[in-house]
Amino acid sequence: MGMVGGGLDAFIGSVHRMAANLDGQVELVCGAFSIDPEISKQSGEALFINPDRVYATYQEMIEKESKLPEGERMDFVTIVTPNFVHFDPAKMALENGFNVVIEKPMTFDLPEALALQKLVEETGLTLALTHTYSGYPMVKEAKSMVKAGKIGEVRKIIVEYPQGWLSRLTEREGNAQAAWRTDPKKSGKTGAVGDIGTHAAHLAEYITGLQITELSADLHTMVKGRLLDDDANVLLRFNNGANGVLIASQIAVGDENSLRIRIYGEKGGLEWIQEEPNSLIVKMSDEPKQIFRTGNNYKGEYAFSSFATHNTRTPSGHPEGLLEAFANIYRNFVSTVSAKLTGEVPTPEMLDFPQVGEGVRGMAFIDKVVESNQSTEKWTPFTI
Amino acid sequence: MGMVGGGLDAFIGSVHRMAANLDGQVELVCGAFSIDPEISKQSGEALFINPDRVYATYQEMIEKESKLPEGERMDFVTIVTPNFVHFDPAKMALENGFNVVIEKPMTFDLPEALALQKLVEETGLTLALTHTYSGYPMVKEAKSMVKAGKIGEVRKIIVEYPQGWLSRLTEREGNAQAAWRTDPKKSGKTGAVGDIGTHAAHLAEYITGLQITELSADLHTMVKGRLLDDDANVLLRFNNGANGVLIASQIAVGDENSLRIRIYGEKGGLEWIQEEPNSLIVKMSDEPKQIFRTGNNYKGEYAFSSFATHNTRTPSGHPEGLLEAFANIYRNFVSTVSAKLTGEVPTPEMLDFPQVGEGVRGMAFIDKVVESNQSTEKWTPFTI
Amino acid sequence: MGMVGGGLDAFIGSVHRMAANLDGQVELVCGAFSIDPEISKQSGEALFINPDRVYATYQEMIEKESKLPEGERMDFVTIVTPNFVHFDPAKMALENGFNVVIEKPMTFDLPEALALQKLVEETGLTLALTHTYSGYPMVKEAKSMVKAGKIGEVRKIIVEYPQGWLSRLTEREGNAQAAWRTDPKKSGKTGAVGDIGTHAAHLAEYITGLQITELSADLHTMVKGRLLDDDANVLLRFNNGANGVLIASQIAVGDENSLRIRIYGEKGGLEWIQEEPNSLIVKMSDEPKQIFRTGNNYKGEYAFSSFATHNTRTPSGHPEGLLEAFANIYRNFVSTVSAKLTGEVPTPEMLDFPQVGEGVRGMAFIDKVVESNQSTEKWTPFTI
Amino acid sequence: MGMVGGGLDAFIGSVHRMAANLDGQVELVCGAFSIDPEISKQSGEALFINPDRVYATYQEMIEKESKLPEGERMDFVTIVTPNFVHFDPAKMALENGFNVVIEKPMTFDLPEALALQKLVEETGLTLALTHTYSGYPMVKEAKSMVKAGKIGEVRKIIVEYPQGWLSRLTEREGNAQAAWRTDPKKSGKTGAVGDIGTHAAHLAEYITGLQITELSADLHTMVKGRLLDDDANVLLRFNNGANGVLIASQIAVGDENSLRIRIYGEKGGLEWIQEEPNSLIVKMSDEPKQIFRTGNNYKGEYAFSSFATHNTRTPSGHPEGLLEAFANIYRNFVSTVSAKLTGEVPTPEMLDFPQVGEGVRGMAFIDKVVESNQSTEKWTPFTI
Repeated sequence: MGMVGGGLDAFIGSVHRMAANLDGQVELVCGAFSIDPEISKQSGEALFINPDRVYATYQEMIEKESKLPEGERMDFVTIVTPNFVHFDPAKMALENGFNVVIEKPMTFDLPEALALQKLVEETGLTLALTHTYSGYPMVKEAKSMVKAGKIGEVRKIIVEYPQGWLSRLTEREGNAQAAWRTDPKKSGKTGAVGDIGTHAAHLAEYITGLQITELSADLHTMVKGRLLDDDANVLLRFNNGANGVLIASQIAVGDENSLRIRIYGEKGGLEWIQEEPNSLIVKMSDEPKQIFRTGNNYKGEYAFSSFATHNTRTPSGHPEGLLEAFANIYRNFVSTVSAKLTGEVPTPEMLDFPQVGEGVRGMAFIDKVVESNQSTEKWTPFTI
Repeated sequence: MGMVGGGLDAFIGSVHRMAANLDGQVELVCGAFSIDPEISKQSGEALFINPDRVYATYQEMIEKESKLPEGERMDFVTIVTPNFVHFDPAKMALENGFNVVIEKPMTFDLPEALALQKLVEETGLTLALTHTYSGYPMVKEAKSMVKAGKIGEVRKIIVEYPQGWLSRLTEREGNAQAAWRTDPKKSGKTGAVGDIGTHAAHLAEYITGLQITELSADLHTMVKGRLLDDDANVLLRFNNGANGVLIASQIAVGDENSLRIRIYGEKGGLEWIQEEPNSLIVKMSDEPKQIFRTGNNYKGEYAFSSFATHNTRTPSGHPEGLLEAFANIYRNFVSTVSAKLTGEVPTPEMLDFPQVGEGVRGMAFIDKVVESNQSTEKWTPFTI
Repeated sequence: MGMVGGGLDAFIGSVHRMAANLDGQVELVCGAFSIDPEISKQSGEALFINPDRVYATYQEMIEKESKLPEGERMDFVTIVTPNFVHFDPAKMALENGFNVVIEKPMTFDLPEALALQKLVEETGLTLALTHTYSGYPMVKEAKSMVKAGKIGEVRKIIVEYPQGWLSRLTEREGNAQAAWRTDPKKSGKTGAVGDIGTHAAHLAEYITGLQITELSADLHTMVKGRLLDDDANVLLRFNNGANGVLIASQIAVGDENSLRIRIYGEKGGLEWIQEEPNSLIVKMSDEPKQIFRTGNNYKGEYAFSSFATHNTRTPSGHPEGLLEAFANIYRNFVSTVSAKLTGEVPTPEMLDFPQVGEGVRGMAFIDKVVESNQSTEKWTPFTI
Repeated sequence: MGMVGGGLDAFIGSVHRMAANLDGQVELVCGAFSIDPEISKQSGEALFINPDRVYATYQEMIEKESKLPEGERMDFVTIVTPNFVHFDPAKMALENGFNVVIEKPMTFDLPEALALQKLVEETGLTLALTHTYSGYPMVKEAKSMVKAGKIGEVRKIIVEYPQGWLSRLTEREGNAQAAWRTDPKKSGKTGAVGDIGTHAAHLAEYITGLQITELSADLHTMVKGRLLDDDANVLLRFNNGANGVLIASQIAVGDENSLRIRIYGEKGGLEWIQEEPNSLIVKMSDEPKQIFRTGNNYKGEYAFSSFATHNTRTPSGHPEGLLEAFANIYRNFVSTVSAKLTGEVPTPEMLDFPQVGEGVRGMAFIDKVVESNQSTEKWTPFTI
């Protein structure tokens, strides 16, 4: 693995590294960790990287690594820079034959996303998008349950993502994470919508297998002086007639990272809360509520799907957290890439990680939400 | 107390009676319990009512009772019929000098509500509207906290009211409650919006002291064959610039009566969940989450307001439920009426129950939601 | 109903009145509310009692009321005085033909309890003991499930009752409740054990139908200057070979009234928490955890027993609290007494309230716990 | 790192590897993964170990590795075999100059533990014992709070560890984990007590800094045919006068791994639940309950200790789980060892992991619990 961004002063880079480390299958061998060469160098040292493979720029990294013999050069590129530096390195990596892991939102804008999609299709390479929350075993079980018809046709989806960390002008308090995320030049045309709204939208579509077809958005910048939205309410309609609500807010004081989704079908309902990720609440009509918990060996009708068990590492009652969910994306991505290399067909379980198509939908979601917010029309069609 | 409706086959009548009984201050002395005289008679017997005061119609009841000597006749009239039989008995009661307790939504339509408001103003009598949830001590504490500025200016309100009991065509399964609530001739122009949406809207305005000024509604009838909406998503804007989301659904399979409200201010957030009514979650910026619990004698900055303690009956850890919240409305109504009778000025704590103005806003809310739902404009002003 | 004790300065008297009021079947007609005649008089006034029937002493009350014509005199006597004034009024009431409701622990000591039991047997009258927690619908459902064999043979019972209200010398802070409860002359030979330990022991035996046969107790007075135990740990063994742990503490700072019981059988486990009384957690081997909630109309194998539904007043999601549980004891007691009066056989549901035998076991429990605590032997047999 | 045990058919070995991998500081370079050489070989392959360093026995591993040049040979030995194969490899490793990580309980019996302690003292080497739960940030925060006097003198400790996985004869269902844990020849003189009771006892002493001085134990084998205890209730007394209860059960049907500890002091109480590890509940007298959550930047009096932050990897709301807690033990062990190697003094934060002395106390706990269980005396002193 070679890393673009993720120097010691960054946050998400370290999360990617831990996720990649967990299973002992991936080795970080090189990186262009920062636009500041000194930070890049220090980062490389701290990470025990051979100094020769700590590069000044991603261009240099891709160029030089691609010249190394197979088996020696990096296997894939991980891009953990702010949004505005996603597309170029991803493009260059793909063009040079490298598979790619990339942070969400996939690109700075929709045209870039479409271009990336085209490139992935042309090269036949694999791109993984780290919509982390889809990596949790109970999210995968929810998806399996919906697919198996357990709750019947889906009627309503409520997905919310309240955070409180931007309830002040945190970007002026020396918080680097806040600074770039609220800067339109680095983040793109939205703040909360791109940063967390795309996670929420992805989760809704991922679990249900449905697609948003229309939306009605109300965006706000509740903290004075901020340059992008920090709060969004969006009404949704899905391609099967289901309706929905999506709430994404960074000014929800006191909330941490409270992504939560509820899905109501004709026969039952599902509920999952990211901060209690090992529980999946199932509510069947006329029956007591059931709490499914990661890692159990339930029997009979309650047995977990292969998708849940494939993505579980510890026995029941031994909590798995965000890093394990993240590691699932890496593990499935690596398994898929390995399988392809050896000419095997990846299993459905391996292939179950967010890919370029989902990245395109995320960027389109941002576009449509902004369009709707500016419109006096109630509904804006969501087409790509 | 004289009761209109609430025969033995009804649900809410019994709740009113238990709530009125609880404190031993109110005696049910007469009633017109049903349009079916036989049921009315049987109900009267079961309730130990003097058969002479079990009336065939509310007209008869009001007429005859008003002729009884003061001190002997009923003190007030409680109306617990379906919505379409709210206005007439309330009007007649007020016109004959009786104070009134009435179920929500207050009337069948807005003109009736406005007429009732006029009558209350003209007569100087008191009308209590049983928006039960505002009777819980922790709801009152939340209101006090907002008023005291604890969470700063309110920025965002999320209020949701999911129920699952109408996720099938329950109205065709012999369920009387479902039958009239889904019948436009008895319920009014909405189903879920009037039945539970008005509770949610009331709670949001009650706790924050704000008013909805604009809304954008998306109503659905998710169960085929149903005549009224059973699902509603509404975007809100408030008179101080806060935004909000209101969700009311009767097809949220597996949910019971899961009214929940979250209020985010500049400095802190509040959360209250009806099914865990004795907890109020307070989230102050940079501090651990706090759980305030009914009945405690917190000290110093944490001390409960007089509004919370006035409405609490048992010590901490001895759960109070819906009937106690309901009884608070009765007790405060009775205290207010008694004070007025003796020429005293009711205290703010006594006066803290939903009254006719709130009933008018509820009926207007229904109107505006329907108007917005039919409009292609995103925003519909909420004015009365 | 005539009341002994429960003047305006007391706590539990008001709880009894509200519980008795709730269903509109019981009327408080007389009382000897306090040893202070002035307080008794004031209490009577505040409670709208005919001054002629506000008595100076319970002796006077029982004497005079028993001379009133049937149908006019009180139906039964409720005793809500401190423990040392339970036996005498109960005895006199029974001897004069009155049924009795009495607070727990039933008497001051075991001999009194046995005497009362004898008297109940001789008179054929009914005595209800307000072990409130057995009145909750979900507790009754738990009992029904155990009886039906759902969880198999019971193996282990953990029952705990932590409170924090006596973690200081509250009895010297002018708290009347604390004062008599920590006074050996008024409370009996124990503090926490009698006040809350008996509730815990009762609940364990009530739900499982088992009996404690041996125990090993460790009592403590953790607050210096206190005269009775405020903290107890007790190991238990039951008559079917099950083992158990009982913890009762009044110095569990920050805990309110956190009675909780867990029962593990061969096939499944049950858990109930008093502060969340409308949930019953059922844990069947190899299945997801289930949450049964008061008031639901579950179908098939999940359908509630008649004991749960008989004791439920509101639909699911409308929380019932302590007063409703308390009222169930009153309602069942009254139904039983009424049935007996009219020569009917009370149904099992009616008879399902704590009676004199359970009071005797409670007093014996106190004795045996004290005996064990003073012994260096590990196990003390629990026999009566 | 060289590993003893932990072949592909084992459970805990993989947990150790993931924990060691997480931070990218430890590399698994060799192992004697199984007594079955074939499994050992396969395991080595699957783990990408150089075949030359996959050894047939731990003896061979230690012998050969110790002959490799410094910098090339393994840095330390991790022992993840069943209890009866802890001592010998640990002894040999220490004698050959290797630091050691070892699973709990530390040895097969107390004499072995004391011998190991002596060896550690003599060699000056470092031994880490994986009492995983002490690695959670909120456990460390609890310890810091107690030490800082936040809750005052500790009065009562309730620690419970219910699991349900052995509620049947799981050891005869082909479950390898169950098989050795219930085999006295492999597990030692206890089952539940050694496997989970030692975790509970450690946690109580770790957080409070107190020591158990007396105990009274009641052990059971509830599942017929099992050879060791599967259920234990133990009364505790601590060296400051506090009392306690410890419950450890493997027949608590439906419970997963529900370790939970409550500590009550003079001024406040603490509660931590392993299955919700990112929350620490703090209950101060006269104040609302507070929920501290991992990863927050609380300010002022609420600021986390350096011990909590040092052991946290992700921002608030991004759940950390068992593997992260486990990894904290590894990271601190490695930091300590590294510091010692370079002549630095390890910081208190680095040194904060369970060591050999805690292993000795664990083995003594097992001894004393068994002794007490066999005694008719209520109390057995806990001395070493």
